[in-house]
Amino acid sequence: MERTYAAHVRGADSVKVCGFVDTIRNKSKMAFIVLKDITGRVQVTVEKGENPALDEAVNQLTPDSVITVIGKAVESEYVKLGGVEIYPREIVVESIAAPLPIDREARKGHERSSIDQRIDYRWIDLRTDANQLIFKVQTVLVEAMREYLRARNFLEIHTPKLIGAASESGADVFEVKYFDRNAYLAQSPQFYKQMAMASGLERIFEVGPVFRAEKSFTSKHTTEFSGFDLEMSYIESYEDVMKLEQELLTAALKKVKEQYGEEIARVFGKEVIVPEGAFPVVKLADLYDALEKEFGYTCPAEERGDLTTEAEHLSYDWAMKHYGCEFLFVTDYDAEKRAFYHMRKDGVPQGYDLIWRGVEITTGAQREHRYDVLCAQAAEKGLQDDVKFYLEFFKYGCPPHGGFGLGIDRLTMLLLGLTIKEVMFIFRGPNRLTP
Amino acid sequence: MERTYAAHVRGADSVKVCGFVDTIRNKSKMAFIVLKDITGRVQVTVEKGENPALDEAVNQLTPDSVITVIGKAVESEYVKLGGVEIYPREIVVESIAAPLPIDREARKGHERSSIDQRIDYRWIDLRTDANQLIFKVQTVLVEAMREYLRARNFLEIHTPKLIGAASESGADVFEVKYFDRNAYLAQSPQFYKQMAMASGLERIFEVGPVFRAEKSFTSKHTTEFSGFDLEMSYIESYEDVMKLEQELLTAALKKVKEQYGEEIARVFGKEVIVPEGAFPVVKLADLYDALEKEFGYTCPAEERGDLTTEAEHLSYDWAMKHYGCEFLFVTDYDAEKRAFYHMRKDGVPQGYDLIWRGVEITTGAQREHRYDVLCAQAAEKGLQDDVKFYLEFFKYGCPPHGGFGLGIDRLTMLLLGLTIKEVMFIFRGPNRLTP
Repeated sequence: MERTYAAHVRGADSVKVCGFVDTIRNKSKMAFIVLKDITGRVQVTVEKGENPALDEAVNQLTPDSVITVIGKAVESEYVKLGGVEIYPREIVVESIAAPLPIDREARKGHERSSIDQRIDYRWIDLRTDANQLIFKVQTVLVEAMREYLRARNFLEIHTPKLIGAASESGADVFEVKYFDRNAYLAQSPQFYKQMAMASGLERIFEVGPVFRAEKSFTSKHTTEFSGFDLEMSYIESYEDVMKLEQELLTAALKKVKEQYGEEIARVFGKEVIVPEGAFPVVKLADLYDALEKEFGYTCPAEERGDLTTEAEHLSYDWAMKHYGCEFLFVTDYDAEKRAFYHMRKDGVPQGYDLIWRGVEITTGAQREHRYDVLCAQAAEKGLQDDVKFYLEFFKYGCPPHGGFGLGIDRLTMLLLGLTIKEVMFIFRGPNRLTP
Repeated sequence: MERTYAAHVRGADSVKVCGFVDTIRNKSKMAFIVLKDITGRVQVTVEKGENPALDEAVNQLTPDSVITVIGKAVESEYVKLGGVEIYPREIVVESIAAPLPIDREARKGHERSSIDQRIDYRWIDLRTDANQLIFKVQTVLVEAMREYLRARNFLEIHTPKLIGAASESGADVFEVKYFDRNAYLAQSPQFYKQMAMASGLERIFEVGPVFRAEKSFTSKHTTEFSGFDLEMSYIESYEDVMKLEQELLTAALKKVKEQYGEEIARVFGKEVIVPEGAFPVVKLADLYDALEKEFGYTCPAEERGDLTTEAEHLSYDWAMKHYGCEFLFVTDYDAEKRAFYHMRKDGVPQGYDLIWRGVEITTGAQREHRYDVLCAQAAEKGLQDDVKFYLEFFKYGCPPHGGFGLGIDRLTMLLLGLTIKEVMFIFRGPNRLTP
C-alpha cells in the first residue's frame, strides 16, 4: 500500500501514514495521536477497547516514537488539525523513543535547552518544523544556484581536499597524517578552480567542504562549512563577475521566495526579499566617508584599507537608506589587504566584497593570470615558495578569468536570521567534533 | 562585444572568439591558427604584411598560448575545419605558453607521456577534447541523478567530514591534528545520513568527498573521491532501495546518452547503454554455482561469503549472457562479511551489491533501526564502544530506512572505459598529493 503524506490525508480515503509521534493523549476511552512527517501533522483517533492490538500499540507509545498507521481518513469539523482524522485499522510500532534528553522548544515549566545541548542531540533537535525548513530552503537555494549556472555552460568539478602544501597563508590550516608524510585540508578550492581555468574548462563551479583551523567563537564562524565556488574565463573585468553574482543570487532568492517565502515569514519572521536590478557599488574609501558623515563612525586609520566588522553592519543601514537594497558591493580595497592573486590596475585590486544584511558573504575578483605579474605579486607578499606549485598553472597559457566563493551555511543563516550553529546540519567548532 | 563560441562561428559575421592556440602554422605570407575553446575549434587566417599589429601578435604565439580574436567570419569550402575561417581585425595575446613539458597525445616521434607525468601537469593534460568531455559527461550524470531525487522529495544535506571518532572499522582512516586533540576524516557519510533519518528528514542525498587511507594501487582505488550517497525512510525492504537505485541510474544514463552518447562513442569508443526494465538479481551462492558451472570458476571456500574480484568480472559476462544487462544485483551475502548496521532477516543481511560492467559500484541495504538489535549486532563485531555515538541516534525514535552510496569517479570511469587516474580532476593516491 502506498504511503500518504500527512499533508495529503484530507481528501484521501484509505491511507497509510508514517511518522513520529508528535503528541499523544492516551485516555481510558479514547487516544489521540498527532503524527508528524516531513510534510506536516495529522491526527490519529483510537477508540479504546475495540481492537486489543491497537490498544496495545497505543499504550507503548512515547513522544517521538515512530509509527505506521493504516486506516480510514475521515473529515471532521471537530478536528482542528486540517479538519481530518484517521481511524486506524492497524498501528505498526516501528521504534519506541526513550525519554528525550533535551527540550527542543520551551514548554510549560521547562526552558528550551541551550543550542549546545541541542547540538549534542542534534538528531532530536532537527525534528522541529523550523529546523526541517532550514534544509528544505537550503536545498532549493543551492539547487537554484546550480540551475542558473548550468544554463550558462558552467561545469561541475570536484577538487581535492587533501593537498600537499598549506595553501595561501599557511596559517589556519589543518594538518593530516598522510601515510609517512603530512598533508593539509584545503581552506578553499581557490587554487584548483583557477587550475580549471588553465585547463580550458572555461566555466566551473564546485559545492564542497572547506576547512578553517581558526579558533573563532562568533555567531558566524565554523571550522568546516560548505562552500559554493565558481570561476569563469574570458571576462573583461571584475565587473563581469559582480554581474554574474548579482544575477545568480537574485535568481536563487526568487526561487526560494516562490517555494518557501510564506513559510519562512511564518516560521522565522523573515521576509525573503528578491533584489530588483543592479546591486549598489561603492568604493571602500567613499563608504568610510559616508559612514562617518551619516553615522558618525570613524574607522581607525590603520584599518581603512579593509572593511571593519562594524562598518559591515553599518553599510547595511546605509545601503538600505540610499538604495533600498540589502546587498552592497564594496570595491577598491588596499592591495596590501587582498590576496596576491587578485589582478591590480594602477595598484588597485580588481575585486570586491559583497555585503548582505550587514555581513560579508563573498570576496570576488578578476585574478592575475599573467605569469610574470603573478610571480611578482606573490613575491611581494613573501609567498613565492609557498605557492610555487600554483604559479606553475599560469606558465603554459591561461585565459583571463575571475570568480568568487560563497558559504552556503552563511547564506542560509542570513536568509533565515539564525546563527551558524543553528543552521548547520551538524556544527563544527574548535570545541565541537560531535555528534 | 559578445563572445562567440568556436562551434557557433559558422553563420556569424563579425565575431569575437577566445581560446587556446591549438596549432599554428606561421609562414612568411600567411599564418593559420587553429583556436580551441570548450565547444570546438575554428581556424584564424592571417595574411601577413597587411597589419603590423597582427603580424607581431602572430609571431609571439606558441602552442597553448591564449588569444582573443576579433574579426570577420567567412565561409570557405577550402577550410576543412567547419568550412569557416576568421579574418582577424585584432588579436589580443592574453597569455604566452612556455614550451609544454608533456605530450598530451602521441605525435610523430614522441610517445604520449605516462599518466603520472600527465597528472604532474594535469592542467595541460586536461585541455584535450577527451579530457574535457569527461567533465561534461560527469556534470550531466550527477545533475541527472540529483534531478531524479529532487523530483521525489529528497533533500540535499552536507554532513561533516571532520569527525571526532574513527568511524566504522577504524582502519583506513586519516588522522587530523585538530587544535589540541585528534580528529578523523569521514570515510563515508554513512552514520550521518542515517542520523538524518533519525532527524525525520526522511529522504536525503549528499554529494561530497570521502577519504580512504588505503595503500591500494589499483586502477580503481584512490584516497579521496566524490561520493554520491542517499538514504530514505519508511521503506518496506531493501528491495525498495534496489528499485530506486535502478531507476536512478537508468534515468541518469538516459540523460547522458541523449546529450553525449555520440561523442562518447566517437572519443572513447564506448556505447552508453540505457538499461531496459529491472536489473537482474541473484543470490551470492547461486552466482558462485553458476560461475562454476559456466566458467569453471571455483571460489575459495573461505571467500564464498563475499564476492571476489574475479567473480565480479565474470558476473558481467554471466549477466550479459543470461539477461543482456550490464548491471547485476547480488544479494544474500554472509552477515560476517557485511557491516553491523545492515538489517538481517533470519540471519541474512538485507542488502546487496550492485555490479556494473564487472565492477562493484554500490553497497546498499536496509539498515537496522531498532536500537536493541543494532546494539547487539555492533557488540557481535566488537564495535559497541567505537560506535557508541552512532548507536545513540536510534534510541529516541527512528524510522525504518535504507540507502546506498556510489562513487561518481568510479561511475564515470566505467561509463567511459578509463582508469580512476584518468578520470579524476586531480587524482589522489598514497604517493600522490600534487598538483
